[in-house]
This record gives sequence, structure tokens and C-alpha cells, in this order.
Amino acid sequence: MLYWHYEAEKNMKKKVTFADLARKTGFSKTTISRYFNNADSLSLETQEIIRAAVEELGYKENKLARVLANGRTEIIGVVVPSLYMHYYAYLLSHLLQVGEEYGYKFIVFFSDEDRDTEKKYLSELMAYNVEGLIMISHVTPSKELSKLNVPVITIEREDQFVNSVNANNYQGGLMATRHLVDIGCEVLIHINGDLLTTSPAYGRIRGFREIAEKSGLESREYLTRLGIKYRDIRENMIPIFEDIEKNYSGKKKGIFVSNDTSANVLLNLILQKYNRLPDDYKLIGFDDSPISWEAVMPFSTIRQDTRAIAEDAMEMLVRMMDGRKHRIPIISKSLIHHVIDTELIIRSTTEKKENNE
Amino acid sequence: MLYWHYEAEKNMKKKVTFADLARKTGFSKTTISRYFNNADSLSLETQEIIRAAVEELGYKENKLARVLANGRTEIIGVVVPSLYMHYYAYLLSHLLQVGEEYGYKFIVFFSDEDRDTEKKYLSELMAYNVEGLIMISHVTPSKELSKLNVPVITIEREDQFVNSVNANNYQGGLMATRHLVDIGCEVLIHINGDLLTTSPAYGRIRGFREIAEKSGLESREYLTRLGIKYRDIRENMIPIFEDIEKNYSGKKKGIFVSNDTSANVLLNLILQKYNRLPDDYKLIGFDDSPISWEAVMPFSTIRQDTRAIAEDAMEMLVRMMDGRKHRIPIISKSLIHHVIDTELIIRSTTEKKENNE
Repeated sequence: MLYWHYEAEKNMKKKVTFADLARKTGFSKTTISRYFNNADSLSLETQEIIRAAVEELGYKENKLARVLANGRTEIIGVVVPSLYMHYYAYLLSHLLQVGEEYGYKFIVFFSDEDRDTEKKYLSELMAYNVEGLIMISHVTPSKELSKLNVPVITIEREDQFVNSVNANNYQGGLMATRHLVDIGCEVLIHINGDLLTTSPAYGRIRGFREIAEKSGLESREYLTRLGIKYRDIRENMIPIFEDIEKNYSGKKKGIFVSNDTSANVLLNLILQKYNRLPDDYKLIGFDDSPISWEAVMPFSTIRQDTRAIAEDAMEMLVRMMDGRKHRIPIISKSLIHHVIDTELIIRSTTEKKENNE
Repeated sequence: MLYWHYEAEKNMKKKVTFADLARKTGFSKTTISRYFNNADSLSLETQEIIRAAVEELGYKENKLARVLANGRTEIIGVVVPSLYMHYYAYLLSHLLQVGEEYGYKFIVFFSDEDRDTEKKYLSELMAYNVEGLIMISHVTPSKELSKLNVPVITIEREDQFVNSVNANNYQGGLMATRHLVDIGCEVLIHINGDLLTTSPAYGRIRGFREIAEKSGLESREYLTRLGIKYRDIRENMIPIFEDIEKNYSGKKKGIFVSNDTSANVLLNLILQKYNRLPDDYKLIGFDDSPISWEAVMPFSTIRQDTRAIAEDAMEMLVRMMDGRKHRIPIISKSLIHHVIDTELIIRSTTEKKENNE
């Protein structure tokens, strides 16, 4: 098993330098340096000769040396609340995929929704000279984020003082509730957290409320902290389910749950009690997370286009980061909030059962 | 909305330097520098005075400057295949949590199981002078990883030429299969990918095979690539389910599926056909992923202690990284493979239904 040791030693020795590349190509070290820091200032022919030499000699770039030369770390910091919610795992995957297409690397932190932890991570990220920051976690107020000396984009969280990209939650709330009305529900029910009105997700509540009022139907909102882990959500969902069973028995209930992870918990409670989804239960979630189609009974939901959100956030962040690299930094004075369309996905939990069935 | 701009400008100006700290404390800049690079060489009293000044003046450490001074980036690279498999999302969360406790930051890449992409990422990580590497992705042979000039730990992948931490897959395979025998199954079935024998997960197949042979029962292995996305797995599982239905009808089937994501797919197919789990189907997965308890019918599984795996991997990696920082680097010549115990978790899909029911 000496192999590994030997190879490591061998690799340590054969470190290729700018001088080697200069010797090989006949160009000066300055030209080699320009190739790495501003390739466009060289002719295509020169670029090609150097590229070939880099490949042949197996030159390994030292990013840290580059960072010192041009201040660009090419690192973006991301703070995510957790990966327990399927939605976050999905969004993070897309962000990293898109970011890599732009040539950026990500330092990722999970804050577990703890403000002190998050504060520590933010100062760590600043110490690494990250070029930009994407905040998915909720706990640090946007006012504090705005004071960091780095471009920040938030996704689906309070964004009063920073640029943001959010799903059109309000539109999603309208669509979900209107769909429940359309399929003939008699009671409209919305289950959500105890959100602040400044949270983008509050738009789901506004959308529900607007349609509920317009419809003139009986309606009910259960707004209480559900948690992010399955067990917590289940524990908090049981009394809600019992209350619905008691108060709305016999009525056709249209239930709009704030996210798919929680909608799956409620669906399980119903299926575990009845062994099927009774006709008087209509259920729709939000996010189009994997669980919405991986559940034994795939359920209706409002699709958040996480790929589009990730792309839009990266595009905006790259523009902000590039602006800072001008000789006279361009720092936009007005805030930008992008809103990405949502889509109604109809699956078996809200299918209309008509006479023809 | 001028606020953000103004704050950013203000922050740009008040950058605190070593000189400021020296002035404030009365110590030399060298002493201040020692505080950040080798605090233990100073008296506790001196440390406390400087710490107070750092806090009062709001000094922000520049990690990159430190890296140049001592070569420590405190960054670990992680390459994950995807977050579609619940197991990977879980393992990544734990790794990042544990790593943060050690004061390390993570640059995370998703390779999507593509070897060229992974090659590119590995060279990027090397260019950032990461201090260590944790590979969860499968596609780069360990021989190539061993040639990287940095400590590498692999988790649950081929590890012939590198240090690794794996679950005791063989033990898990034994336990799962023995459990199926114990509850009176007549046919033993194992569903897994077309694994190489060098993959740690192949231990699950060996465990199954050993018990199946010893038991003298009829047995069957379906070893074929299932995929990592739900839709792919479902598509590949349908013909397997049909084959089982056709060939083992009426017999009490004990089915051990290689991971919970795939076990959930099979459970859904069974539940969708029968609206319940028929008595002649006994099912057990592997991993104890969230889906195993979030499914409408929580299913039996073999628990991989991802937290313990993450802790063990970080501990081993930190030891390797520290070894390199000695004046004469300590590079171990022999490979270390740790194996972490698994645990049988019995839920409703393999409960014994005895006479007393």
C-alpha cells in the first residue's frame, strides 16, 4: 500500500510554474499571466499556443494567487436553513448547478434557523472574501444583510432591504384556492405557518383569503408554526386534522397546505385513517417538491420553478458582482425584487369526480 | 431606497487594520499577527486584551491574507452525486454540521455522476488549495483520487486506493435477510443496482446471498441499474414488480431493496395495486432515509448512522490534514477503511402477524 504515498510525493515535485509555460511557449511570463487574468487581451493564436502548453505540461492554476492579483475569489456563499425540507434540497441543487455554469464555486452553510450560528457563518463568509451571497435562510433580518459589504440576493424570505427572487406566492395562492372552488368544494381551508406579513410566503395566505372572500364559501385558516422536521410537522398537524374532522364532517373540504412536506403529512393522516382519500377531501400543496409525486397518492400542488428561480438569482447576482469590478464600482441604488410565475399542477387529490365516473 | 447604498459605502470606509489594533492595545503589529496565527504563543492576558480590541473596533479577519501566511485555507471540498437521493441530502447535512464544529468550511459540488464534470470540479478544488476532500460521488476511480496531492476520504464508494468510511453494508445485508427469514418468508428477493464488487454497497448483496444460501429457501436477485430519480426508478421497478407478481404469486415474499428511495417506489407500486400491503409481501429497505418514515406506510429498513459516518470521516480527515502541517509532513503509508455498524429498524412492512392478531 505504498502506492498512494509514492504518488503523492511524485506529484508534489512536478509543480509547473509560469516560468515553465514561458519557456515552453517562448512568450514572456507577463504574457502567460495575462492569459490567466485577461485572456481576451491576447490574440486567439497566442491563447491557443498557451492553452496547449498548459495542457501538455499539466499546469495547475493556483486560484489563491489569482485572487491576490485581481481580488476575484469566484466564491459565492449560500446559507440554507436545512435539507430536511425537500424544497431546500432541490433549490440548492439547482443553485449549485447554475452557479457552476457561470464558473462560480459555493461555500455552503446550514444555519438550522439559529440566528447566532448564522451570524457566525456570515462573518466567516465575509472573511473569505466571497464575491456574493445567496440567503435562503430566514433568521437574519434583511436590514442586517444590507449592511454586509457584498452583493446579496435573498430567495423566499423577508427582503425589504435587499434584492430578491421569489416565486409568485400570491398568484400561487389564488390559483390553488380558485381550483378548490372550481372542483366544487364547500369549505375552503388553508394551513400555513404563523408567517410575518413581510415574508414572501405570506402571499399564499393573501391569495387564499382573497378567493375565499370572493367565493362567499365558508372558510378557515389554521396559521400556526408547523416545524420543518417530519415528526414535528406530524405532531402539529394531528390536532388540526382532528379539528377539521370534527367541525367539517360531511362537507366537501378543499384544503390548501402551505408546502408539500406538510401536505404529505396531512395526506398520510387521512390515508392512515380511511385507507383511501375520501370523496369529501380535496388536497393541494405548494412547491412541487419530489414528495408530491413520490407519495403513494401523488398530490396536486403549485409548482415553484426552482430552476428558473436559481437561474434568475444567479443572473442578478452576477450582474451585481460584475458591477463592483468596474474601476468606479457600479452599486445600484434601487432594490430589485423579481417574481417568478407559479403553475397549477393537478394530480389525483383534486381530480373532479363527475357523473361520467 | 438609498439606505442600502449608503450603508455599503459607510462599511467600505471603516475597515480596521492590524495597525489600528496595535494602536488600540499598545502591542506591536507582530504581536497582533501572532494573536491571529498562533494565539497560544501569547499570554492569556495579552490574548484577552487583543480579543477585546478586536471586538470593540469590529476588526474583520481577512482569511485570504492568513492563508498566504500559513497555507491553511480551512476549506474542504465535497463532491456529491446529487440531492435527489434522500440519503445524500442527509449525509451532506451531517457532514457540513460536523465540519463546521471543527471550524472547516465546505465547497460543495454536485457531479450528477458525470466523470468529465467531476474531473473539472476536482481540478477546481485543487486550484483553491482545499485542505482535504470528501468524495461521496462514485465516478472517479479511487486510484485517480489517490494521486491528488491532498488527503481524501471516500464515503460509500469504491475505495481501493484511498482512506474511507463506510457503513457495515455486509452486516446490514445479513440482518435484513435474516429478519425476512425470521418472520417466515418463503421466497427471499433482493433488488439492487448492477454494482461492481469493489463498491462497499456490494456488501448488501453478499449479506443477502449468504443468508439466502444458508436458509435453503428459494431466492432471487434482481440486479439492474435502477437510476437515482424517482421517475427512472419507477420505470425500472415496474417490470421487476410484474415479474415478482407473476413468478411468486401466493408465496410469502421477503423483499430486501437496496435503498429506501427505491423501496418506497416498490411499496407505492404494491399499495397502488392492492390499496394495502398484502400479507404475502414483506418489505425492507436500506438507509433509514426520511422517506422510510414519511411514507404513508412507514417501512422497515437498515439504519445507516449518517451522523456517526460524518463524524468519523471528519475526524479521520482532520487527522490527515493536521499530519500534513508538521514541519516534516506525516503522510500515513497504509490505508485506513473504517466500517460503521448498521441497525435493523422494524416497522409495519415486516411486522410478524401472528395468531394473536
